[in-house]
Amino acid sequence: MLSVQEARNEISKYSVNSRIVNLSLDVALNYTIAKTVYSPVDLPHFNQSAMDGYAFKFEEWDGISDLPVVGEILAGNNYSGILEKGNSVRIFTGAAVPHQVDTIVIQENIIREGNHIKIRANKITKGDNIRLQGSQTRKGDLILELGQRLTPPAISFLSGLGIANLEVFANPSVGIITTGKELVKPGMKLEPGKIFESNSFGLKSALMQLGINPSSIETVDDSLDDIMQAINRIIHHDIIILTGGVSVGDYDLVSLALERCGVTRVFHKVKQRPGKPFYFGIVNRTLIFGLPGNPASALTCFYEYVADAIGLFTRKEYFKREQLLLTNGFIKKTGLSYFLKGKKGTTGVSILSDQESFKMNSFAMADCIIELEEDKEIFRPNDPVMVRIIT
Amino acid sequence: MLSVQEARNEISKYSVNSRIVNLSLDVALNYTIAKTVYSPVDLPHFNQSAMDGYAFKFEEWDGISDLPVVGEILAGNNYSGILEKGNSVRIFTGAAVPHQVDTIVIQENIIREGNHIKIRANKITKGDNIRLQGSQTRKGDLILELGQRLTPPAISFLSGLGIANLEVFANPSVGIITTGKELVKPGMKLEPGKIFESNSFGLKSALMQLGINPSSIETVDDSLDDIMQAINRIIHHDIIILTGGVSVGDYDLVSLALERCGVTRVFHKVKQRPGKPFYFGIVNRTLIFGLPGNPASALTCFYEYVADAIGLFTRKEYFKREQLLLTNGFIKKTGLSYFLKGKKGTTGVSILSDQESFKMNSFAMADCIIELEEDKEIFRPNDPVMVRIIT
Repeated sequence: MLSVQEARNEISKYSVNSRIVNLSLDVALNYTIAKTVYSPVDLPHFNQSAMDGYAFKFEEWDGISDLPVVGEILAGNNYSGILEKGNSVRIFTGAAVPHQVDTIVIQENIIREGNHIKIRANKITKGDNIRLQGSQTRKGDLILELGQRLTPPAISFLSGLGIANLEVFANPSVGIITTGKELVKPGMKLEPGKIFESNSFGLKSALMQLGINPSSIETVDDSLDDIMQAINRIIHHDIIILTGGVSVGDYDLVSLALERCGVTRVFHKVKQRPGKPFYFGIVNRTLIFGLPGNPASALTCFYEYVADAIGLFTRKEYFKREQLLLTNGFIKKTGLSYFLKGKKGTTGVSILSDQESFKMNSFAMADCIIELEEDKEIFRPNDPVMVRIIT
Repeated sequence: MLSVQEARNEISKYSVNSRIVNLSLDVALNYTIAKTVYSPVDLPHFNQSAMDGYAFKFEEWDGISDLPVVGEILAGNNYSGILEKGNSVRIFTGAAVPHQVDTIVIQENIIREGNHIKIRANKITKGDNIRLQGSQTRKGDLILELGQRLTPPAISFLSGLGIANLEVFANPSVGIITTGKELVKPGMKLEPGKIFESNSFGLKSALMQLGINPSSIETVDDSLDDIMQAINRIIHHDIIILTGGVSVGDYDLVSLALERCGVTRVFHKVKQRPGKPFYFGIVNRTLIFGLPGNPASALTCFYEYVADAIGLFTRKEYFKREQLLLTNGFIKKTGLSYFLKGKKGTTGVSILSDQESFKMNSFAMADCIIELEEDKEIFRPNDPVMVRIIT
């Protein structure tokens, strides 16, 4: 049986198939850039007024005389008026500065009398209050590098350069198959022996937290044929997640169905609690994750393994791990890594009560998963532990 | 002019109008629960087998004899067969345990010979491997409290209880109006004097990062009529965000348009850089944010003010603030708070270069905004600063 670290290594070995897609900036939030972006334009695209004021040519002013005001330029207007030697023009923030002038005095520093201005400031210097063309970004400048995430400021920046589409690492197509004759959808009537299906809801939400809408979700009976048909329907997806049917019982048919569908098993079972029967396989370039049917085990395996595989595909890091100090103690068996529901505080991380794998209430309150290493039995307050933040 | 803290206080004073909405669990990820949830059912809903094994009645077994196996119960099946005294039945994980039996021996601890089992374990005790009805959650138990966020495990938990809908704090309806005659959509041809419109892209993405799709986005000319019409079209929204036109220039018409539309100004201008002309007003229950047109200023005001107001509406905390140590120094003017683009490292937070408000490249790389307090001039490495995490 593999250790947690061995299982992680095996999965990352097969998670190498990123795809690149050209997306509209409008829907590219949080994607990772797949191709370094160079500026298609100068920014500003023209000499631009940085303030509201009056524009004139510095060398045409004698430092004392009033200047006649011969026109007005608003942002967005292209000034086409005449601008003779020694004249000034009213100009507003963001407007294009005509080529005949080179300096802007802000309106707080003039006195306007009719069609003339008296410039009060004696500190005015040539070039004041003009943002020169290309002073922020030059055409051809490197803007954002491959691997950079598209945050709102990055998207705003690219829009300002006129970029409407760009190449990013695609989200994978992910199909979910939950198996079990006992499963009934929430909101339906519960017949004797049945339980409400929750894994598709938990896994769909977990995928949505990564910005991924599952491509398909299906719940099938514990029948070899049904499971095989469901797998074959989505075998072209990048990732297939199954729940249930990976234990050793006579009716745990998922491993068998996968084998019959041509999936190569990479491993089955990991030295961990919960989630010991965790299965991983591949067929062509499709990654197959078989998670235990127990909802807490299924989500734990998602956070600890599936999300990392998706992150290799999309070139993102989703649920960061960090080392924290325990605030309470715990005694476990050796030979298994434990994943416990935890809550971060200011002084460290607390192990929540109700850790049994079938209990979801503590998981619903948790903001992290605490990993207790395989070979250690006694964990004391202030012991350092690795923690995965899941919020 | 208000300080940053005074501006924050004013906004929070008016941000009191949460709405409650009944949502399908399917789309409720990350919403905050508006009404404490009690379990509608026992969980498990019946005495449930925790393992694959054989079920029998403990007191009917003499501790030595073989037991006849008279049937088989799969998960999801309701056993209707006869089960006489001293008999056993094959049972699988998740199956309902018939009322005639009370103990399950796991399959690893028996030897099966034809239709009989020999129980090997001498440690078997009454009640083994059965999860009693209601042992996880009893009907009527408090499940999740008002104020709790709907994480994937919480959604999985609620689904497992058969809950398909619940009451959560609604997202606000948010309208965006960007103003400016000079604005052209990315991908279009740039006429002289025009610039690419980027604020709607930046703000839309920032809202999407909060899980909110803007209800409307419009770009209008610098015309009083156009701006007033745009405002009136969405004046019933919960929140209106405008960009541009809030400075003091002759053509900065947003404040005037808002006044004419009946908006009461709460404040205009804050002692901060960037974003000094920041405007906040209200009309009926609608919050109005007038952000500067400069893309970096607009997004900074969004992160520092608008997101907090939305968080009061949705009862969430979006961009957390924390105290960190500076890794580099900075000299600023007193009398203004500065918001600088920063990057978190392992030892503290670094102020990025290119901080001018019209430069978006450093913002595109930033993962946080560093707030430098109003009255302090010199910031040295290792000085503590408040930082807002924006990723």
